[in-house]
Amino acid sequence: MPLSPDQQAEIDAQRSETQQTLRATAPGMEKHLYTAHPVLDHGFVRVIDYMGDDAAICQAARVSYGRGTKSVSNDEGLIRYLMRHWHSTPFEMCEIKLHVKLPVFVARQWIRHRTANVNEYSARYSILDREFYIPAPDALAAQSTTNNQGRGAALEGEEADRVLRLLTEDAMRCYDHYEAMISDEGQQGLARELARMNLPANIYTQWYWKVDLHNLLHFLRLRADAHAQYEIRVYADAICDIVADWVPAAYKAFADYRMGGATLSSTALDCVRRMLKGEEVTQENSGMSKGEWREFEGVIDV
Amino acid sequence: MPLSPDQQAEIDAQRSETQQTLRATAPGMEKHLYTAHPVLDHGFVRVIDYMGDDAAICQAARVSYGRGTKSVSNDEGLIRYLMRHWHSTPFEMCEIKLHVKLPVFVARQWIRHRTANVNEYSARYSILDREFYIPAPDALAAQSTTNNQGRGAALEGEEADRVLRLLTEDAMRCYDHYEAMISDEGQQGLARELARMNLPANIYTQWYWKVDLHNLLHFLRLRADAHAQYEIRVYADAICDIVADWVPAAYKAFADYRMGGATLSSTALDCVRRMLKGEEVTQENSGMSKGEWREFEGVIDV
Amino acid sequence: MPLSPDQQAEIDAQRSETQQTLRATAPGMEKHLYTAHPVLDHGFVRVIDYMGDDAAICQAARVSYGRGTKSVSNDEGLIRYLMRHWHSTPFEMCEIKLHVKLPVFVARQWIRHRTANVNEYSARYSILDREFYIPAPDALAAQSTTNNQGRGAALEGEEADRVLRLLTEDAMRCYDHYEAMISDEGQQGLARELARMNLPANIYTQWYWKVDLHNLLHFLRLRADAHAQYEIRVYADAICDIVADWVPAAYKAFADYRMGGATLSSTALDCVRRMLKGEEVTQENSGMSKGEWREFEGVIDV
Amino acid sequence: MPLSPDQQAEIDAQRSETQQTLRATAPGMEKHLYTAHPVLDHGFVRVIDYMGDDAAICQAARVSYGRGTKSVSNDEGLIRYLMRHWHSTPFEMCEIKLHVKLPVFVARQWIRHRTANVNEYSARYSILDREFYIPAPDALAAQSTTNNQGRGAALEGEEADRVLRLLTEDAMRCYDHYEAMISDEGQQGLARELARMNLPANIYTQWYWKVDLHNLLHFLRLRADAHAQYEIRVYADAICDIVADWVPAAYKAFADYRMGGATLSSTALDCVRRMLKGEEVTQENSGMSKGEWREFEGVIDV
Repeated sequence: MPLSPDQQAEIDAQRSETQQTLRATAPGMEKHLYTAHPVLDHGFVRVIDYMGDDAAICQAARVSYGRGTKSVSNDEGLIRYLMRHWHSTPFEMCEIKLHVKLPVFVARQWIRHRTANVNEYSARYSILDREFYIPAPDALAAQSTTNNQGRGAALEGEEADRVLRLLTEDAMRCYDHYEAMISDEGQQGLARELARMNLPANIYTQWYWKVDLHNLLHFLRLRADAHAQYEIRVYADAICDIVADWVPAAYKAFADYRMGGATLSSTALDCVRRMLKGEEVTQENSGMSKGEWREFEGVIDV
Repeated sequence: MPLSPDQQAEIDAQRSETQQTLRATAPGMEKHLYTAHPVLDHGFVRVIDYMGDDAAICQAARVSYGRGTKSVSNDEGLIRYLMRHWHSTPFEMCEIKLHVKLPVFVARQWIRHRTANVNEYSARYSILDREFYIPAPDALAAQSTTNNQGRGAALEGEEADRVLRLLTEDAMRCYDHYEAMISDEGQQGLARELARMNLPANIYTQWYWKVDLHNLLHFLRLRADAHAQYEIRVYADAICDIVADWVPAAYKAFADYRMGGATLSSTALDCVRRMLKGEEVTQENSGMSKGEWREFEGVIDV
Repeated sequence: MPLSPDQQAEIDAQRSETQQTLRATAPGMEKHLYTAHPVLDHGFVRVIDYMGDDAAICQAARVSYGRGTKSVSNDEGLIRYLMRHWHSTPFEMCEIKLHVKLPVFVARQWIRHRTANVNEYSARYSILDREFYIPAPDALAAQSTTNNQGRGAALEGEEADRVLRLLTEDAMRCYDHYEAMISDEGQQGLARELARMNLPANIYTQWYWKVDLHNLLHFLRLRADAHAQYEIRVYADAICDIVADWVPAAYKAFADYRMGGATLSSTALDCVRRMLKGEEVTQENSGMSKGEWREFEGVIDV
Repeated sequence: MPLSPDQQAEIDAQRSETQQTLRATAPGMEKHLYTAHPVLDHGFVRVIDYMGDDAAICQAARVSYGRGTKSVSNDEGLIRYLMRHWHSTPFEMCEIKLHVKLPVFVARQWIRHRTANVNEYSARYSILDREFYIPAPDALAAQSTTNNQGRGAALEGEEADRVLRLLTEDAMRCYDHYEAMISDEGQQGLARELARMNLPANIYTQWYWKVDLHNLLHFLRLRADAHAQYEIRVYADAICDIVADWVPAAYKAFADYRMGGATLSSTALDCVRRMLKGEEVTQENSGMSKGEWREFEGVIDV
């Protein structure tokens, strides 16, 4: 369970105080505010704040004076049009602020998305908690034999046991030594900014992460994708559920045009046209490499 | 008056609808929401939405679970510390969305601040209104004789009259021809995306502009500065008043450390130290150029 | 002709001075350096500097110690893989700096691409030249009757003549008055930063524009597209020719996967699959709106 | 020694191949190209490529046709003016690409500077080397007793020995287990993307990092500062030496206005003015908090 009783009490206090506001409010989002959605063994995603809703996207696209909603169906059509034609700026008019607790090796992938604001818990200033990610048995995957950057089946038996034991023991020992080094009992105590170097990458960190909806959807397209590493994908999945409640029309368009869609190359489109005319197209006469052809087959499902 | 009755009615409708929210709310900001603050002869600034308050800055700096406020004085001290030591990320955790109506030549300066989200009224798609900025008499300044990039005293008498007449007549004639060219009565009608090229740079445009507090303060430091062009400075001034109501502690720290402060070079600091020790320092023995010395005298006010 | 004899002499001087360097050099790009490629009636694109080549993309992708080229065919395959899988960071490792002369209304579209560095000629500081874009007869298009944001056929006869006359006369008159207002003969002279507001949006400006290859390709995808406004598309086309000489493998992959490719939605992919299985798919049973279906037909060309 | 014989041979090969180019070339920078400047025990900084020189800054500021140099002294004055008045865009016209090898905990600080391009060695795809940062004795600092985010004196005697032993043993053991887990001898072998989580934050990673001069100077101001963590400051110092050779005039202006300069608040400037008029100013009558006053005394050195 990722939260201490104190933390849960603070969250409950936040959820108990309702304010009056003239701002646009997304009913589906209010229910998520502050609540910790558990991810992995000790992580979570919490919505701290949000700006805008589906109507705000349309209002900005129209640079209008009023709330921007002509009618809901009208707005949905406009949102689909904007998504289809890569008009990204209206989606930038919505913003979300999350509090995320996540293992360091996940944080290192996540931070590569630069168009966002971040405040991370400082291990120069503070002492990290003894919390490490240890994979559940079904996430303990072998190296893929076909893809250098991928996973195969879950490890089993003795090998799985040994890996779990090593991960756990090393984490505990490193943390014990971290504590021993920074302790000021009977010694000076090593600077925190140095002692943290002894902690392995499965230790949990946390940050506030603020991002606009356009850049968030870009993040989700890459990180909720089947090829993303499992440990970041579960965060992306949790955020997808939140976004679906926040801006339902935008999320639906995103699911259709981005998550469920695919970009076909000029060569691939040409193959589709030839196939629709009845021609027999094979990898050999497709103009694609074997790798491309395999991916193409996956998309058109033949 | 910049608003039509329809527009005013839409704004009034927005202001009449109160929502319940669990989000942080800034009381000083609620009163600004949607209202058009007039700037120049036809322009305005309107707050469309905001995220966060002073406490949100501290909450992010502490990566905390609860609302983040220990006590207001505590928060004020932390905000001053963050501002003084250029910790910019906590200020990025607040966000504001504005609807701005402004002359095109002001918009061209404004857009150079890249870290913001913008949706501008499209003159490819829509027809622009017949509204042009014509300077008030005291803003009708002569070219500076000492600074290539500056203004001198206001023009007077016949010259002032002639300039106002030329600006007004050219604007009206260009707009007449714009309308004549796009008209589809008895002719095909020129494409809007082409006809707009006949409109001078004092025509008004409008946009939604969304920016985080850190980048907004950077914009204000440069554009509310005495050296900024008057026509953008009045927008910056109007926004300063809004920010002071939104995040009073952050604005106060900004006023002290940025707007009212100054950066002294290594050479200038050395001169200050010598002067404090009683040495007679002049431009000749200062190590500064004449221009730098003049600016230095302005700062230390001797 | 966009260049004065002095300017041409400066360019010739630059092209006559060869330096020795240890840096990666792109032979196809050296021939473009400094030369002004004419665009529209007075505009141009000039390459001022560049960093990297096709091999530099691969070198960064491999984080390698040496030049990074195993073999050219190897590099081409890697570049195609990176482009296909949206690995954008290796393409960010190449950079180009252009000097562009362009009408203000084109500059206003262009600047919306924010991830770039810009220095524009300052009309606060300097006096603009009397150069205006006047469309060639075949670019003098009517408003589209089907697309609010588009063009129809070229205007003809008397209407075309009238439009050209109005554009030319208004530009000349506005510039005459600009000159008259800033003149300091027998008067104070209006500040340049004010006088510029009288100049219509077809006046030429110029800037230095520096951008990485990833963001440049994104710009080209949107602006060299058939739906982009003609007056910016001709700049994008000129830059495409330059990029094809600079990074031939990356440009070829871009042409295949981006310019010639298309993104199909989940719904559209489903239709393709149904059609390939022999099903009769029409707009009515496609799940797409009429607009989407029309675009889909354009892509699969049935 | 950070480089293998193979790596050194690749670097030597790169340095032996001279190209002809028409581009601006910085003689002081050519000597740095490709060479590995050692930092910490296994790290380095290597210049892979650069764009522009001092003259390029001026050329962009003037949006000029030719090389932009009127005379060197002229350029120096312009560069000082641009730096003093925070005109950042001309400095963005220079670009540098570095290959950096650095401990992961340093990389995590570094990456917070978002306006840069990065390609990092992938531990999902590849196997990391057995190289860990172990502080030299004089860098083995105690936690500061006055500053939560700082260091005190170096640890001594038995405590120092114990810390070095713990850091070394934990690193070696974690790496042994990393190797054991990914091994495919007699077992499936854990996925690399998972096994890396067992590696502590002092393991070395490497990346290509590309940044413009303006953002690089901002990075250097914060990270070459006395308050920066020692382990990132040594990288910043190494880069300062490179920049001083690359753009000597810009670096000199940076050293005077940024590194050696200080920003005084409105309150602090007021105190300076009062002191220069002979008034006795103390913390009590200064209007500053104790912390601010202490920093102020440090700046004016009384």
